Amino acid sequence: MTKGSEKLLFGKIALIGLGLIGSSLSHVIRREGLAKTISGASRGRETIERAAELGLADELSTDAREAVRDADLVFLNVPVGVMGKVAEHIAPVLKPGAILTDAGSVKSAVIRDVSPHVPDGVHFIPGHPIAGTEQSGPDAGFASLFENRWCILTPLEGTDEKAIKTLAAFWRAVGSNVDCMDPAHHDLVLGITSHLPHLIAYNIVATAADLEEVTESEVIKYSAGGFRDFTRLAASDPVMWRDVFLNNREAVLELLGRFSEDLSALQRAIRWGDGDKLFDLFTRSRKIRREIIEAGQDTEAPNFGRR
Amino acid sequence: MTKGSEKLLFGKIALIGLGLIGSSLSHVIRREGLAKTISGASRGRETIERAAELGLADELSTDAREAVRDADLVFLNVPVGVMGKVAEHIAPVLKPGAILTDAGSVKSAVIRDVSPHVPDGVHFIPGHPIAGTEQSGPDAGFASLFENRWCILTPLEGTDEKAIKTLAAFWRAVGSNVDCMDPAHHDLVLGITSHLPHLIAYNIVATAADLEEVTESEVIKYSAGGFRDFTRLAASDPVMWRDVFLNNREAVLELLGRFSEDLSALQRAIRWGDGDKLFDLFTRSRKIRREIIEAGQDTEAPNFGRR
Repeated sequence: MTKGSEKLLFGKIALIGLGLIGSSLSHVIRREGLAKTISGASRGRETIERAAELGLADELSTDAREAVRDADLVFLNVPVGVMGKVAEHIAPVLKPGAILTDAGSVKSAVIRDVSPHVPDGVHFIPGHPIAGTEQSGPDAGFASLFENRWCILTPLEGTDEKAIKTLAAFWRAVGSNVDCMDPAHHDLVLGITSHLPHLIAYNIVATAADLEEVTESEVIKYSAGGFRDFTRLAASDPVMWRDVFLNNREAVLELLGRFSEDLSALQRAIRWGDGDKLFDLFTRSRKIRREIIEAGQDTEAPNFGRR
Repeated sequence: MTKGSEKLLFGKIALIGLGLIGSSLSHVIRREGLAKTISGASRGRETIERAAELGLADELSTDAREAVRDADLVFLNVPVGVMGKVAEHIAPVLKPGAILTDAGSVKSAVIRDVSPHVPDGVHFIPGHPIAGTEQSGPDAGFASLFENRWCILTPLEGTDEKAIKTLAAFWRAVGSNVDCMDPAHHDLVLGITSHLPHLIAYNIVATAADLEEVTESEVIKYSAGGFRDFTRLAASDPVMWRDVFLNNREAVLELLGRFSEDLSALQRAIRWGDGDKLFDLFTRSRKIRREIIEAGQDTEAPNFGRR
């Protein structure tokens, strides 16, 4: 609901997938009164039972096709690797005029997999809210997840402008800022701001776990030296992240090449005792941290304000 | 002050270096009443002025030699690269029977640089509190910094047992747990739990900043995808970290080799689309995160409980 304009209200919003994103969408849709009805679907029977207890939806089903019937806005909050299958399954019952969107972390692959199944008259607008935590499942969601975060839309050429505006209005109504960009550019940008950081985090945790000379108990006890920060990202959902790397391969490999090249230069500076080079490099990054804080994308409290 | 035992009280404690560690020591020494007098030294006139305003010490000087006169416990809280010079400078006036310790992140190099200057009758006990934030300077300190963290002592062979016990009692009195270990092992353990994480964090921030295809403004806007976590570590004090890498070269290079090897394997799994391998690896790290939380070394709140 954009302030000063007519209230944004959908008849029915379908949430396919009720993990962190799906459950957070449910909470904020309720809080803002954005839908008359919320329907939800998950393949997991346990997830559906928990979603019922939490009141995440008015209608729940293990069959996504049931959930999307008559829905005006459909969110696909499932791992990137199954987007195509889900789209194929729900396609026959999608309501003409409905907006179909997703929350996948990769956009080119989702477009490749979903587009072929979208019926004429349904507005498919790929999206990606840059928000999350390391937790997953229906209990992980909270209404403020999207607040002050960015949501990127990557609409295909020829998409109905009004539908794009409506979806953008939805994201603003849940507290986000909205940007539009080309899907390939999205995949590169998120490759550096999200995919590569997760990959590096997973990797360093593995390196630490496999050392013979240092016990796991030592790694844990002394993790406050910095290591613990990486374990948060590395505790993220394994299925989601497997699918991200399998589906954003080119961008991730390209960025990994850059990263390794830079690391070799740094390694060389350490080997040769080039203190000036290290100092210059270490000085630069304070500026970026400050800008992230100024842009409202992180807290300025030391140690993230941990308790 | 160990509970149930006699109160631990030093006549005079000298804090050489009044940055994050020195100022935090000051706050907690005052809170716990561990010294009759605190003296402080910093080479920076501005730091001394600020320390005076903050009341960090009863006596302040830009000359470390002045601060250590008559001190029973002397902390060297300066970058690892200048420990030797400071030790040489203060050595002539160190009080017989005094305990000389440090908070350096590397222990073998500090022992190499400091030991030759320590007069007979002074108990040199190298130490390292595994605690910190990304901030530095006299304003960065707070009394609870060391609470529930570990302090590692790496005493040399033949060190007076009573002096070691006294220093361990000090660290317990400020809220820490105390471990003793061999200096070389310390440098390897901290290499993986602290030095490598910082190096990787500095490196990824540099990689991101240098990309031509993604603007710095995009990196900042979408940093909540994971990148922002790395910028915290990479905002740490450049001088301190330059000196760490120059003085723990062998351990860091060895660990960097392991890290790069593991990263190559991961890169290969992505290139060949080996989803099972990725999934298995990503699943393992959740366990380590859980153990760190159970050990009280990180918060279980999502996103570190950031606001």
